[in-house]
Amino acid sequence: MTLTLFGYWRAAAPYRVRIGLNLKGLAYDQSPVNLLKGEQRQGPYLDLNPQGLTPALALSGDGGDGVVLTQSLAILEWLDETYPDAPLLPADPLGRARVRAMAMTVACDIHPLNNVRVTGELAARGQDEPARRAWMARWLAEGFTALETAIAAHGGTYAYGDAPSLADICIVPQVYGARRFEIDLSPYPTLVAAADRAADHPAFAAAHPSLQPDAADA
Amino acid sequence: MTLTLFGYWRAAAPYRVRIGLNLKGLAYDQSPVNLLKGEQRQGPYLDLNPQGLTPALALSGDGGDGVVLTQSLAILEWLDETYPDAPLLPADPLGRARVRAMAMTVACDIHPLNNVRVTGELAARGQDEPARRAWMARWLAEGFTALETAIAAHGGTYAYGDAPSLADICIVPQVYGARRFEIDLSPYPTLVAAADRAADHPAFAAAHPSLQPDAADA
Repeated sequence: MTLTLFGYWRAAAPYRVRIGLNLKGLAYDQSPVNLLKGEQRQGPYLDLNPQGLTPALALSGDGGDGVVLTQSLAILEWLDETYPDAPLLPADPLGRARVRAMAMTVACDIHPLNNVRVTGELAARGQDEPARRAWMARWLAEGFTALETAIAAHGGTYAYGDAPSLADICIVPQVYGARRFEIDLSPYPTLVAAADRAADHPAFAAAHPSLQPDAADA
Repeated sequence: MTLTLFGYWRAAAPYRVRIGLNLKGLAYDQSPVNLLKGEQRQGPYLDLNPQGLTPALALSGDGGDGVVLTQSLAILEWLDETYPDAPLLPADPLGRARVRAMAMTVACDIHPLNNVRVTGELAARGQDEPARRAWMARWLAEGFTALETAIAAHGGTYAYGDAPSLADICIVPQVYGARRFEIDLSPYPTLVAAADRAADHPAFAAAHPSLQPDAADA
């Protein structure tokens, strides 16, 4: 099966899927969607993903022709079910629940509040750059405070135990984004240490925004 | 195992978990957390869930003592793995990916933008009631537009095929919330018809906010 990832080099959600694909050892093509030019809301991409958000993963060959998967966590769960080697979740239901809760703390309660469509809406409502940064910092702080406690309780080399998981897949891109926006990460030393160890893993390192084909367009 | 759900009668995310518990035919206790009084950010509850959001599901007995699960979708996936009868997801990976994407369109890209901590922050930034309603309507419209297309393609009696799933579990509470805030649902006839059929299912009907023990506190 051929996999084509539609995403944007600097966006958190496609970054997650790149990490997952790399952890699974899967080859994939990339088709850049420039969020700053609004390509996610224009014809060709919107036909693939009517929600107008990235990422999307298009399948072809081996019965996958014409199938387009959306929502980064749904794509990652599909990857884990379809390619079970190098699992993204622990084997036991309780561990899986804890890892998914960590991932969703980022993917539901931090990232969707801070992405470009939302900060754009805030700007349109007269919220200036410092006000927008304070907005982003608030949701990050609430989520990372909870994650700091969870990682202190359940973390090891990585956010949950000693294998990289869906939790690290969500946390590493969020830490990258927080640093980009100069949000203070000093209250979360356990989280940041685990994220930095994960970022050094080859699958994470190869997914870094700076190494993607469209990074040169910046 | 004894299950205790911490939630608030009118909140969307605990409503999802009630539906899931009912679909599984599981008995559970409820421990109300009054969001309007800020109980989610006070000692007893914050000790259970440091993120200060609802729901949380506390386990006791049968080796579950002291375990508290958080994040509604992580709880629902745990329920589905632990009690496999009456599955919340289709059997095939592609179907599972589509249902999870529908669920996450609500749980990641609509609900977290419109919940009480966010509308409270907007109010603190001088956004009046009509401005806050326009904010909520925008994110709902973007998500429901995508869901209308997905349900037209893959829906049957319910949002995905002819069995209730995680998609309906997320969509029904969001439709309830949209009606409460008088958001126009006429552009989404396929979605609304499927949601109304799901809402009539006994497991969904028994989870309705108006039937919960803390509804009388309103």
